[in-house]
Amino acid sequence: MSLLLHGYWRSSAAYRVRIALNLKRVDYRLVTHDLREGDQRAPDYRALAPIGLVPALETDDGQILTQSLAILEWLEERYPDPPLLPGNASARASVRAMASLIACDIHPINNLRVLNALREELGAGKEAIRKWIARWIGDGFAALEVMASGHGQRFCFGDTPTFADCCLVPQIYNARRFGMDLDAFPTLVAIEANCQAIDAFIKAAPENQPDADSPAT
Amino acid sequence: MSLLLHGYWRSSAAYRVRIALNLKRVDYRLVTHDLREGDQRAPDYRALAPIGLVPALETDDGQILTQSLAILEWLEERYPDPPLLPGNASARASVRAMASLIACDIHPINNLRVLNALREELGAGKEAIRKWIARWIGDGFAALEVMASGHGQRFCFGDTPTFADCCLVPQIYNARRFGMDLDAFPTLVAIEANCQAIDAFIKAAPENQPDADSPAT
Repeated sequence: MSLLLHGYWRSSAAYRVRIALNLKRVDYRLVTHDLREGDQRAPDYRALAPIGLVPALETDDGQILTQSLAILEWLEERYPDPPLLPGNASARASVRAMASLIACDIHPINNLRVLNALREELGAGKEAIRKWIARWIGDGFAALEVMASGHGQRFCFGDTPTFADCCLVPQIYNARRFGMDLDAFPTLVAIEANCQAIDAFIKAAPENQPDADSPAT
Repeated sequence: MSLLLHGYWRSSAAYRVRIALNLKRVDYRLVTHDLREGDQRAPDYRALAPIGLVPALETDDGQILTQSLAILEWLEERYPDPPLLPGNASARASVRAMASLIACDIHPINNLRVLNALREELGAGKEAIRKWIARWIGDGFAALEVMASGHGQRFCFGDTPTFADCCLVPQIYNARRFGMDLDAFPTLVAIEANCQAIDAFIKAAPENQPDADSPAT
């Protein structure tokens, strides 16, 4: 029995997990939950993942894992080869700091549920939302550009993909989707290009998922 | 030379790290950065921590670690005793999911810089801010209540403190500070009481820090 990934093609947190599963060549099946329809808040999914967000990973012994960073750590422990964390504690701390910066300081503030609340509860219009997103991605990427320049060679840390790249590529996808100019982040853009040359990243891309809308939508 | 923790008495992310350092009985010194004054955005601090947020931990060999969850992982690897993660991968995934839920899905959305942006850029008033905070803490705690009820005995997972408790106690401190009613979360409140009976948690509390304001402020 293979792993079962509850996700959605455009969820960047699910995209992180897809990349890691592909890099580790682990078989998995997909279950989609349409975030635009609120399917992730349905009672049967919440029985698995009380927070009502994707992704969740059902393991072959029936455990439900939630939270993308926790899932990456589990994958690293369960399928150590190829490693997505470096070999010593200091280096691992650097990789985890870059992954956390994206997963804590950028992504949650621009998440669908937060943008909906800005619109519905604070009356934020299209331009205010655009500025909101650009601000948090911009602040985060500026820091990440410095960190990746210090640690990276072809990737965020060293010359093989790590957790940090699993998080960076989906966040750049989101930035582009929201029309952000990425000229100020040449290191990050170069790392992304190196990632996008790897099959595991290509196969994980939103538009290559079976539940993806046609490119026009 | 002991570890140097860059923090602020009321930063809940720094509070998490203080708890873990105390539980592991690791010596550390504190450097405070007054978040209300924007000291965390000063160039000399940003040279250490490009994102301009606390905490950061300077190790005895001069490395700067950022992001509280990455720092907790480093502490666990460097000072394994007492452990703050359980002994098997499934159990570790559950603990990390609870810690991530707080660190990704609750805290960043209610962070000082985000609340300031809501006020300054979207004109959110006092009542709108109160509702905003209560909503994200409420959604997150509702999920965490289910998870901790399933896994916990005296703590979020099992009968000793883990990363999850290091994150929960500061988040409950924040919830109380913002006047939230916690009656719907009896498991979390009971876990917090068990934590607050432990010296490591008491010593880490905001009001017990040398940079704390007097209780009246």
